[in-house]
Amino acid sequence: MKLHGFFRSSASYRLRIALALKGIAAEQVAVHISRPGGGDQFQPGFRKLNPQLLVPVLEDDGHAFVQSLAILEYWEETHPTPPILPEGAAARARVRGLALMIACEMHPLNNLRVLNYLTGTLGASEDAKLAWYRHWVKLGFDALEPMLANSAETGIFCQGDAPTIADICLVPQVFNAKRFDCPLGDYPTIMRIYETCEKLPAFAAAHPSRQPDAA
Amino acid sequence: MKLHGFFRSSASYRLRIALALKGIAAEQVAVHISRPGGGDQFQPGFRKLNPQLLVPVLEDDGHAFVQSLAILEYWEETHPTPPILPEGAAARARVRGLALMIACEMHPLNNLRVLNYLTGTLGASEDAKLAWYRHWVKLGFDALEPMLANSAETGIFCQGDAPTIADICLVPQVFNAKRFDCPLGDYPTIMRIYETCEKLPAFAAAHPSRQPDAA
Repeated sequence: MKLHGFFRSSASYRLRIALALKGIAAEQVAVHISRPGGGDQFQPGFRKLNPQLLVPVLEDDGHAFVQSLAILEYWEETHPTPPILPEGAAARARVRGLALMIACEMHPLNNLRVLNYLTGTLGASEDAKLAWYRHWVKLGFDALEPMLANSAETGIFCQGDAPTIADICLVPQVFNAKRFDCPLGDYPTIMRIYETCEKLPAFAAAHPSRQPDAA
Repeated sequence: MKLHGFFRSSASYRLRIALALKGIAAEQVAVHISRPGGGDQFQPGFRKLNPQLLVPVLEDDGHAFVQSLAILEYWEETHPTPPILPEGAAARARVRGLALMIACEMHPLNNLRVLNYLTGTLGASEDAKLAWYRHWVKLGFDALEPMLANSAETGIFCQGDAPTIADICLVPQVFNAKRFDCPLGDYPTIMRIYETCEKLPAFAAAHPSRQPDAA
């Protein structure tokens, strides 16, 4: 099993957490996506692996799987212990919903190629780019905070007392929000869960600063 | 079961297709999200249902579920026949990957609130907004087309000969691409699958033009 990723990529970070939680061994290949003048994702070899030119990609058993949430579900099916989805259809739907709120509505808007389009094609200033970034983080966390704070299903983690794909998406999103100095004071529940996760060895081992390709 | 949606919303359209494919009965509630001066999603009642202020929302069994892909998985678990995911972890990962390529990397960038931010806050022209829209459709379909065309797993539909969540995401994305006059001539496989789906009663019944709230 070979995981192509980048230390600072949110979606790669999610997969590193899951690998560590589940104790799955995978060779990790660094794809430097923000190299000045064009990242490694534009090389022909990578283009063949993932025509969408995004990390992460998982090579396993002759397949090249894309999209981090699809890969998390793949591992949940092939390596079910410990689980990263709860039992029960309703609880699973809540957890997937929380994960997708981050993976669909926050992260893609603040992806590197989107920020590059803003400043390049649209000629947005650095300040306008930062405001854009913080706007989508704020909208997302403004919704996540009450959904976590007001639900009896929230426990030590987003759902009960074991980490799930919701926490796996939350932690990299908070990491990135901190990197862009987004105000986080209004999100006590998000930050409590983030800090709880950070204390777990699996989350700590997956941190961007601890990856071999960290600059 | 009560589904809150909007006739033209891609994510609502996905869920209508799945309801029809699976033969699930649900009351449909129209949430007019593009009303001049502020859509129905900003009303207090809806904000309580989904603090993210997005459609669709599924009310079922005392829960309010958000995010269309989470709801598709929920129905797959609670109403497994006919399935909208294939058998086998690798095939399921491929299908989820294709669906997420649309749901994460294409659709959120061209969402109403993003387009409003471009023209409002960033002062982008209508032409620049259209170019933005077409850019992300092109990037997404440029990747999807070879992934579908070059895979032996592609059949009549995205995966084999039965519709899955990949087709359920693909059809509304093509519908929207057509609405914004995106060039589609370079995507023969995508268009073949789209046209095959359109002939199925479940996809036809879910079409935006056939919903009671269509203007």
